[in-house]
Amino acid sequence: MSIRTPEEYRDSLRQLNTEIWAFGEKISDVVDHPLFVPHVNAVAATYEFSLDPTTEDLMLAESHLTSKKISRFNHIHQSVEDLLKKVKMLRMINQKTACCIQRCAGMDSLNTGHIVTYDIDQKYGTNYHERFNKYIQKVQDENIVVIGAMTDVKGNRALKPSKQKDPDLYLHVVEEREDGIVVKGAKAHLTGVTGAHEVLVFPTAALKDDEKDYAVVFSMPVDTPGVTYIFGRQSNDTRKTEQGEIDKGNAQFATVGGECIAVFDNVFVPWESVYMHGETDFAGKFVEIFAASHRQNYGACKGGIADVLIGATYLTAKYNGVETASHIKDKLVEMIHLVETLYSGSIACSSEGHKTASGAYLTNILLANVTKQNTTRLVYEIGRIAQDIGGGILATQPAEEDFRHPEIGGLIDKYLVGVDGVPTEARLRVHRLIECLSSGTALVEAMHGAGSPQAQRVFMLRQGNLGYKEKLATKIAGIDSLKN
Amino acid sequence: MSIRTPEEYRDSLRQLNTEIWAFGEKISDVVDHPLFVPHVNAVAATYEFSLDPTTEDLMLAESHLTSKKISRFNHIHQSVEDLLKKVKMLRMINQKTACCIQRCAGMDSLNTGHIVTYDIDQKYGTNYHERFNKYIQKVQDENIVVIGAMTDVKGNRALKPSKQKDPDLYLHVVEEREDGIVVKGAKAHLTGVTGAHEVLVFPTAALKDDEKDYAVVFSMPVDTPGVTYIFGRQSNDTRKTEQGEIDKGNAQFATVGGECIAVFDNVFVPWESVYMHGETDFAGKFVEIFAASHRQNYGACKGGIADVLIGATYLTAKYNGVETASHIKDKLVEMIHLVETLYSGSIACSSEGHKTASGAYLTNILLANVTKQNTTRLVYEIGRIAQDIGGGILATQPAEEDFRHPEIGGLIDKYLVGVDGVPTEARLRVHRLIECLSSGTALVEAMHGAGSPQAQRVFMLRQGNLGYKEKLATKIAGIDSLKN
Amino acid sequence: MSIRTPEEYRDSLRQLNTEIWAFGEKISDVVDHPLFVPHVNAVAATYEFSLDPTTEDLMLAESHLTSKKISRFNHIHQSVEDLLKKVKMLRMINQKTACCIQRCAGMDSLNTGHIVTYDIDQKYGTNYHERFNKYIQKVQDENIVVIGAMTDVKGNRALKPSKQKDPDLYLHVVEEREDGIVVKGAKAHLTGVTGAHEVLVFPTAALKDDEKDYAVVFSMPVDTPGVTYIFGRQSNDTRKTEQGEIDKGNAQFATVGGECIAVFDNVFVPWESVYMHGETDFAGKFVEIFAASHRQNYGACKGGIADVLIGATYLTAKYNGVETASHIKDKLVEMIHLVETLYSGSIACSSEGHKTASGAYLTNILLANVTKQNTTRLVYEIGRIAQDIGGGILATQPAEEDFRHPEIGGLIDKYLVGVDGVPTEARLRVHRLIECLSSGTALVEAMHGAGSPQAQRVFMLRQGNLGYKEKLATKIAGIDSLKN
Amino acid sequence: MSIRTPEEYRDSLRQLNTEIWAFGEKISDVVDHPLFVPHVNAVAATYEFSLDPTTEDLMLAESHLTSKKISRFNHIHQSVEDLLKKVKMLRMINQKTACCIQRCAGMDSLNTGHIVTYDIDQKYGTNYHERFNKYIQKVQDENIVVIGAMTDVKGNRALKPSKQKDPDLYLHVVEEREDGIVVKGAKAHLTGVTGAHEVLVFPTAALKDDEKDYAVVFSMPVDTPGVTYIFGRQSNDTRKTEQGEIDKGNAQFATVGGECIAVFDNVFVPWESVYMHGETDFAGKFVEIFAASHRQNYGACKGGIADVLIGATYLTAKYNGVETASHIKDKLVEMIHLVETLYSGSIACSSEGHKTASGAYLTNILLANVTKQNTTRLVYEIGRIAQDIGGGILATQPAEEDFRHPEIGGLIDKYLVGVDGVPTEARLRVHRLIECLSSGTALVEAMHGAGSPQAQRVFMLRQGNLGYKEKLATKIAGIDSLKN
Repeated sequence: MSIRTPEEYRDSLRQLNTEIWAFGEKISDVVDHPLFVPHVNAVAATYEFSLDPTTEDLMLAESHLTSKKISRFNHIHQSVEDLLKKVKMLRMINQKTACCIQRCAGMDSLNTGHIVTYDIDQKYGTNYHERFNKYIQKVQDENIVVIGAMTDVKGNRALKPSKQKDPDLYLHVVEEREDGIVVKGAKAHLTGVTGAHEVLVFPTAALKDDEKDYAVVFSMPVDTPGVTYIFGRQSNDTRKTEQGEIDKGNAQFATVGGECIAVFDNVFVPWESVYMHGETDFAGKFVEIFAASHRQNYGACKGGIADVLIGATYLTAKYNGVETASHIKDKLVEMIHLVETLYSGSIACSSEGHKTASGAYLTNILLANVTKQNTTRLVYEIGRIAQDIGGGILATQPAEEDFRHPEIGGLIDKYLVGVDGVPTEARLRVHRLIECLSSGTALVEAMHGAGSPQAQRVFMLRQGNLGYKEKLATKIAGIDSLKN
Repeated sequence: MSIRTPEEYRDSLRQLNTEIWAFGEKISDVVDHPLFVPHVNAVAATYEFSLDPTTEDLMLAESHLTSKKISRFNHIHQSVEDLLKKVKMLRMINQKTACCIQRCAGMDSLNTGHIVTYDIDQKYGTNYHERFNKYIQKVQDENIVVIGAMTDVKGNRALKPSKQKDPDLYLHVVEEREDGIVVKGAKAHLTGVTGAHEVLVFPTAALKDDEKDYAVVFSMPVDTPGVTYIFGRQSNDTRKTEQGEIDKGNAQFATVGGECIAVFDNVFVPWESVYMHGETDFAGKFVEIFAASHRQNYGACKGGIADVLIGATYLTAKYNGVETASHIKDKLVEMIHLVETLYSGSIACSSEGHKTASGAYLTNILLANVTKQNTTRLVYEIGRIAQDIGGGILATQPAEEDFRHPEIGGLIDKYLVGVDGVPTEARLRVHRLIECLSSGTALVEAMHGAGSPQAQRVFMLRQGNLGYKEKLATKIAGIDSLKN
Repeated sequence: MSIRTPEEYRDSLRQLNTEIWAFGEKISDVVDHPLFVPHVNAVAATYEFSLDPTTEDLMLAESHLTSKKISRFNHIHQSVEDLLKKVKMLRMINQKTACCIQRCAGMDSLNTGHIVTYDIDQKYGTNYHERFNKYIQKVQDENIVVIGAMTDVKGNRALKPSKQKDPDLYLHVVEEREDGIVVKGAKAHLTGVTGAHEVLVFPTAALKDDEKDYAVVFSMPVDTPGVTYIFGRQSNDTRKTEQGEIDKGNAQFATVGGECIAVFDNVFVPWESVYMHGETDFAGKFVEIFAASHRQNYGACKGGIADVLIGATYLTAKYNGVETASHIKDKLVEMIHLVETLYSGSIACSSEGHKTASGAYLTNILLANVTKQNTTRLVYEIGRIAQDIGGGILATQPAEEDFRHPEIGGLIDKYLVGVDGVPTEARLRVHRLIECLSSGTALVEAMHGAGSPQAQRVFMLRQGNLGYKEKLATKIAGIDSLKN
Repeated sequence: MSIRTPEEYRDSLRQLNTEIWAFGEKISDVVDHPLFVPHVNAVAATYEFSLDPTTEDLMLAESHLTSKKISRFNHIHQSVEDLLKKVKMLRMINQKTACCIQRCAGMDSLNTGHIVTYDIDQKYGTNYHERFNKYIQKVQDENIVVIGAMTDVKGNRALKPSKQKDPDLYLHVVEEREDGIVVKGAKAHLTGVTGAHEVLVFPTAALKDDEKDYAVVFSMPVDTPGVTYIFGRQSNDTRKTEQGEIDKGNAQFATVGGECIAVFDNVFVPWESVYMHGETDFAGKFVEIFAASHRQNYGACKGGIADVLIGATYLTAKYNGVETASHIKDKLVEMIHLVETLYSGSIACSSEGHKTASGAYLTNILLANVTKQNTTRLVYEIGRIAQDIGGGILATQPAEEDFRHPEIGGLIDKYLVGVDGVPTEARLRVHRLIECLSSGTALVEAMHGAGSPQAQRVFMLRQGNLGYKEKLATKIAGIDSLKN
């Protein structure tokens, strides 16, 4: 009963009873609701590409547990080549969907769990790793979609979890039972819940010794009773429910992941699904490894989206008849430069990856943080240039209903035309695509996905090895001999 | 029958029969339609501030025609102090509305018309200036709102107006009658049509001798028969029609001006309202002076909006308990630095303004272009920093309907709380305000309003006086003597 | 016996017995020593321009004490126009000298002294102001050059003056005598000592109540016994002592001010020259006002130098035959944009200046800090672009001795030629000019002169009025009503 | 007779009769002349590191011709791993020398020659490749130093080589003899001539069919008769000839490569050393491959120097007692971020390298150009931050002679002290190190070495695949179906 095709995938989702709210309503037909269809389409595309001979090499990998061909999203990386293929897969997919495909956090948390459970077992003699490998194998065999749940809602950011006025502001264990644990709290910014089968839950930050209840990692089916998901709003989200295609920009796929808050109201988790429980000294490590693995991706996935944006920008220049103007070409070159700088980060941190004790390969942590930091800047600059070339029409183009209207549609068709031979509708469509890729939620995601900018800087300071650099300078400046 | 209060102003608009389309519908109740209310509110605020003793000094000026107190928006600048007060007024208003108040293009085109009609008369012996002064006096006396219509739709940007496949892609005179002219074409990016009484129409670019039909400047009532306005879409525009306030971000005022395309279908204009007709050599001058006058504003008006965005960003840091974190303070300082750099531009080009032959004062053209160029960059960077501090919640916050919902509203209230003592709703509101001010249409407006970035660069090259700078270098380098 | 001409000025310097050290030697003939001639030339130029009818309007002002025409460098600003003329004078002078002309710190400390002595007297009933006015009048009447001495050497920057291991690391009063005080310590970064007659000494930072000995302001002749000046090295400083002109870049004038450390070894200062003595609560105010007055200048003076650099860059493009290439033009436009952004800051903070209690006009403090902050960035970027266009030859051009050498000079002449008609020597000269203006000491001066970048940020945070901005946001977001 | 040790290396140089001019003198003792010692030291270090067990893995490679261990600088890359080791070697070396080690252009031109001679032979049936392999083997066996000579002096850059007024402005064949060719012209910006044994000469740009005489590639001993080298000036070059160590900054090694102009006055080259002769269609390819191979390095070699600069900056912060101040830490993090962004480029283009027809591995051309483009920006920004933290003292520190002087040295020692326990001399030394690494020639080299910025942009436009990106956008926007 392994899922193969996009249709099998959609059917599998229809079996779930996930409680998702949006716009004040409980949504019963998630898979087919216009608000969620573009999100589900994006994940479905990953099944489609896995069947496509031209893309399967990137999409599939060989399981180290079963030696079967499995989705790379459920794979534990076995080599530097795996790390490289991971990011190449992401750029490729996003070039074809121009949106977040929502499966990275799952992939990255599976790999993190593999590494960290091994280390916990080594230190404490626990057997989390075996338990987790069983989970991985199930996920691989059934070819299902796992998402990650990490960010606690945090309340007063200046206080540690245990010092919050309301102890639930960080998810924690409220009861320990013979058959498992009961957890309470909420996780924010979950990506991909509408297309997921499973959720892997883990801490959001390093913890102190006295915060054992917060040191918990577990998996659960997405529709576990007691979990309520509340969908977040995105830029222009209701356009997805409008008639027509043009104003959606990207009509088939979502702009970003589709984030939600998950509220855990005394949710029971059986022991077999618990992979950390009280080992506070590994909470920080889980975060560090997950964060690095996730940041590794951003130059590639945002790079893939940026490729589409560059293409759209080039198109609009052609539609306006100015694609050979030198300042236009120079701006397109700048966009290329920026997107390849992003991508270089993802390639470099992958290329510099290494084998961990568990056998899984892990990205270079410093370079992964550098990669993510660059996306928090360059994606904005790429968007800015796209809007420069795109023109004021990005903010003043009439609605599709006007264009389709028998009385005034003709005026729009006549007056918003570009160069000869290009239908006005093509211009309208490309403007909307630029609009949706160059601003709003798409940018916020590049800023905060995989951690806010300052989080990367903390790692860079820690990993930048100032002490070694100081020694280099001391030697060159001839200061060492001074001190003798 | 001069308009005084916001209510008189709204009533005056209700007298009009402007044909405005939006979302495939002809809107009959523009003033009271939820889509347009925030736009009308913004203009109404300018009437309100004119009556407020604390702001009237900036809002009002003394007419050089009648010596009466008039709205500064209808004033012909009589001194450097007037130029300075103009930009100070704009920053003040936008600090209080956080949106484009839509009257600048009218103000700037009135001043441009005053300057250029004088010059045309000097050269050609025409009497446009007297005619235009009459128009100005009417506008001042009735205290009405004028907007500008400049940007032609342009078709193939590589071709001149007269070379377009469809001659209507630039507005032009199609018939000359005894009592006036008939024009055809379309103007894009009109700001403020929902709140206007009058429109001043003028060319979009310098013209060649053989493009006399395109060299036309005229005024008309906004509801002149034959003119159709089609409203453009903005980021999250339909939120204005939703119930509730929170998700609007700025519930009372619009985010940006409310732009539309105006289609002129053989529209008749009587001679008394025509202020240029065939004088092609003054089309470029009109554009240059209008553009500079309009660019003068952008450091102040976008600065005023940025002030609100900085305040909102500071608030969100306080709500999260991190306003004293050093990296937060440093980012706030950077926002202050950027907004004051913008504002310095508006002050500087005003301070360096000069008297023209007509008697009207004109901003320094080079510095005004520099000011606008900076808004095309710094406003984006200010928005980027706001989104950095604002956090991922900017893109994942649930809808107001969820927050108000009896079943799940409580969960949001519990889990999206910040520091003790601040209602969760305050956080939700400030996130939405940041969202609406830091992305989407608000940025595109800063990029393309008053001309796209490349347009400023053309002026900077022309005004930057490279020849003089070359001479300075030649002297210092001792090259001059070489040539002897 | 007021100095009038450059020659009188040089003669007056020859009367002094200042103890200046450089390169391990005590320099006896400062005025005529090749190392210092370019520095003296720069100051001499200010005398020359004062006699030139085309520049005297900017160079001279009317003394508010004597109503005589005096050097603007010795003037107490009496209006916003004075503030504006100050910065216009600086840009003009630096356009003609391409170097720091070293008299601003004196001008700014005279004005600061005027403002602060008035305030001290108001609070403490002292009579510093009258004393200081006498000093100002002497300086104006004799038309001499005053420089400022502010920056203490500071030792451990994490400790306050009184906590330093060595109390002398901040200049302080070591003895109080009937006829005056005795001071000890050192001041770093003094600009212009080689061309000065007088030094005005003041504190470097706000002081605590228990640091009275450090709260001291006084003036003294530059050659006061007990003061030793040790000249600092600059980029390529020894080129000034080489034969030839080319490799100097700017052969007539220095690249930067000519900074030194002044060591005060128990120096006696009579009471009549003391203008603060123990009033610790005014030390911070002195610094704030001086810093703002000095930062006001940087967009204009560095702007003037940048004008020459732009000219040189344009020249080199012409010499290479590429001045019409679009990417070259675009980079030149960017340089113009940046320099005018700098200048806009100086104009804006001047235009927004205000009258102080003493009657002197003071720049807008926030905008002056913004102006300086921009020079710490944009001057570097201007230099970077100049080096981009200038080409690799900036770092590989042979020495003038090679060019003048009979055996190989011809090879250089043949092979380093540019477009037809331009002597090779002209190219060589302009490369060296770009080299000296675009890097090294010239940039460090733009970074740290008038205070390091972080110092400006402290003021921006203090002056940026976050509380008011917060209120604006609270109102727009509808949060105020929430709290009711 | 293979060179092994630094001393053998220096001895081998002493055998040469290279004609090098500097400062108007012919230098006879190049190896031991104070001006050149630091340059020679840098190359000598590459011999030293090859003998060091901790670095030999990066320094040495296995020859594909002889299977012997050889210097990686003379190696033809046989794998992606070789490409990666190349850039890791460069960062390591530059971390230890803080200067250009001058051997990359040789390494890169050897690899380029290997690739291109193979391709020429394939097309034209020539036997350049075998000839070139012999040359490579000799270089490997003797373990000597090869440098590259590429950049023609160019005259009027708007004209092609054959259109220059003086045909010698691009190096060309002036005579074809039975035993070889005679060439005339000049090459600029040669790096490393003082430490080289051999020079490989090749064209600077793509050539037209009628420019056969300019399509020439050859090797020659550095001291070939008829070749005159004229050394270029660098920032503060004469400090190398001063007494003392402090003011040199980097006393042991040069700041940059030591560039010169090489003039070829009818120089004879035997056929066995000619590897292209008239095959104009391969000139552009040679340039493209060499440029990419060379640009591959810049993120690593400039990264290594930047590591030392970061260390020096950190040191100066510690000496001032401010290394824990948040704004200092943040700036250090930024430096780390920038240097690792640079390095990521070098790793990424290496990791994405591929095998060419000749068997040699070649970097990814697009990413290599992106890497170099980033050095033209980020190296400047790194320098700017270093100068920010370094403080004004970078531009005002007295000369070493003053510090050593018995009379005033004590004053400097007393007053320029930092935190307790650090000798003042350590501060002085680190300031000079920052000075020499953060400005002047060091930056120009990062800008123009391996090609000026615009050269990279030309490649990025060509390699950025806008057509493919356009197709992606067309699909997502739904435009394709439109056209049906």
